Parts: sequence; C-alpha cells; structure tokens
Amino acid sequence: MELLEQRILSEGRVKPGGILKVDSFLNHQIDPQLLYEMALELKRLYAGEGVNKIFTIEASGIAIASLAGFVFGCPVVFAKKSKTKNISDALYSVEVESFTHGNTNTVVVSKEYLHPEDRVLIVDDFLATGAALVGLKALVEQAGGTVVGAGIAIEKEFQGGGNLLRRQGMRIESLAKIASMSDDGLEFCR
Amino acid sequence: MELLEQRILSEGRVKPGGILKVDSFLNHQIDPQLLYEMALELKRLYAGEGVNKIFTIEASGIAIASLAGFVFGCPVVFAKKSKTKNISDALYSVEVESFTHGNTNTVVVSKEYLHPEDRVLIVDDFLATGAALVGLKALVEQAGGTVVGAGIAIEKEFQGGGNLLRRQGMRIESLAKIASMSDDGLEFCR
Repeated sequence: MELLEQRILSEGRVKPGGILKVDSFLNHQIDPQLLYEMALELKRLYAGEGVNKIFTIEASGIAIASLAGFVFGCPVVFAKKSKTKNISDALYSVEVESFTHGNTNTVVVSKEYLHPEDRVLIVDDFLATGAALVGLKALVEQAGGTVVGAGIAIEKEFQGGGNLLRRQGMRIESLAKIASMSDDGLEFCR
Repeated sequence: MELLEQRILSEGRVKPGGILKVDSFLNHQIDPQLLYEMALELKRLYAGEGVNKIFTIEASGIAIASLAGFVFGCPVVFAKKSKTKNISDALYSVEVESFTHGNTNTVVVSKEYLHPEDRVLIVDDFLATGAALVGLKALVEQAGGTVVGAGIAIEKEFQGGGNLLRRQGMRIESLAKIASMSDDGLEFCR
C-alpha cells in the first residue's frame, strides 16, 4: 500500500536489533486517517469473506483494529496480556513470546466474545516472527471459530514468520512488506 | 448520552469492589459504531475549542481515542505504562495509581509527540478516582501544552474524582455519569 510505504520511508527509523520505529503514526502517536485508509484496503482485500469479527492483541493493535471494525461494521475483540480483575474467569488462554519486549505473556480472551460461528480477521500492527499471530489463531480455534485471515500493517518479511504461516495455509495480507532493513535504510518486497 | 446509557443498562454488570463490567462493548469486545457515535458527541461538545491532539493511556482508552481522532481529524497519542525498547529515551513521565488493577504504573510519553502549541483533549473509557486523568494532564503540562478538557465514556461520579477536578477548573465531559451502583443495579446522574 503506497500511502503506508511512503510514511514508513519518510518517518520510520531503523534501530539496533531489527526494530523499526514507526512511533509517529502507528504505535505511540497514531494517524487515524491513515489507519482508516488501511482499514478500507483490508476491507477491499477481504471482501466477500463474511468477516464478522476483528480480533487483535493489546495494546498497539487496538488502534488499527478499531478503525477496521468501524469499516467492516463488526465488533472488535482484543486479547489481553494478563488476567485482571476486569475479566471473567471463563477464558481461552495461550502463551505468546514478544519479540519487541523480549518476554513471554499469557494472552487471554473471554469465552463470551469468541464463538464457533465467528469468521475472524486477525489484525495487528506488526508481523515479525509470527508469535502473536499464532497465539491469536490458537485462541480463535479454541473457540471453534474460523480464522479467515490476517490483516497486518507492517510485515518484516525477512524474519520469516509470515511466510511460515502462509506455507501452513493461512491467508495473510500485509499492507507493507519489508524485505530487508539495515542502518542504511530499508527495502520493500516487490 | 442516551445510546451509551442504554447499552450500560442492558449489558453492564456490577461487580464487587465498585467495578462496572462493560466488556461486551467498551473494553474487551468493542462496538466501533457506538464508539464512533460517542466520538461525534465529543466533537459536538468541544466544537470551536481548537483541539489538535487526542491523548489517552493504553490499553482500553485506545479504541475510543482512535475513533475520536478520526472524527476530530487530528493525531492520537497514547501514553504507555512502562518503558519499552520501542520508545525513545526522551520521555515525559508520571506515576499513576490504577484503581482497576490495584497497582501503580510509571506512565510515559515521548517528548516528540506533545508540544507547547498542542490543544489536547484527553479521552478515556472510565473516570473514577481521576488518577489517570491527573497523570495525563501532568504529562501535557510537562510539555507546556494546553489541556482543553477531557472526554470520558463512563464516569463513576460517586467516586468523586471528576468533581474534584472540575472544582479545580478542568472541563470534563462524561457521556454517561453513574450516580450510584449496587448489586441491584445502577443509577445515572440527572
């Protein structure tokens, strides 16, 4: 998606350890108009798939998922990274390793909000190793629901998670796919 | 706001310890169409105030803030609850006590995303003791910016935080204000 690639080129910064900072428009400050355009593109890509739920993980996935839910006209559910007083005891649960934060989280979702009849689009800001995506997919499957596919803002294709999951048959649409990244800049997949 | 009050009455559940669960449409599953209507109402309430930034705190404030940013046509910034690898070292920082989670968090925001010229609307899903709001206001003031006011989904008025801040001169608009809450139900302020 040209608009997103341009923003990554103009505002993204490559940091040591394979981290791409896009804090200025995607995950600290966010540009809701850009996210709305991205949501429209996901809607176009998944037209006719009967998506009736958007699923993401807190925290930075929530912004793009909220705009996606608005555009798709369906509820958004976000999995939570730990059990808090505000969540019921009836939970689906999975362990997810975080590449960004270097730790492992128990990720949970209330059984009330995922069902066998759900046709779920998983939405997230980044796809790297795929750990979060595998975890979210497992939660939908625990509920007996169907994962229609994933809609990702930025895939770090060189980290392999996306292609591994595609080889396993999962549909993944990434709005920007980065082929390589170094101190000198980055290149998109063509 | 009638639409929000109706949803609270039909789907909200009062839990021990002064907790109101609205997981089905506000902070676990979210209804983006409702949030969009709420954002339109905030835009109406703060018309002419020159709001040029929406500010919230992760995680559950992000959804409503994203729709608010979309409707206001301005960037959204969300403060983060701990320092992670993905945030720069130049931060504004404040301590915030969480009523919901029963702990204290260091809440930070990058200095890049709050500025003296900012006219900030603070948006959040809940207002109870006001601790989060005080913290977010302090962060804006550290940056030299102006807090135009706050736009809250649900204020638990009986916990006093909102009225304390109003007496100190802060404008706070809450889309639903709960006067009292018990096992038998809840009443809104009239």
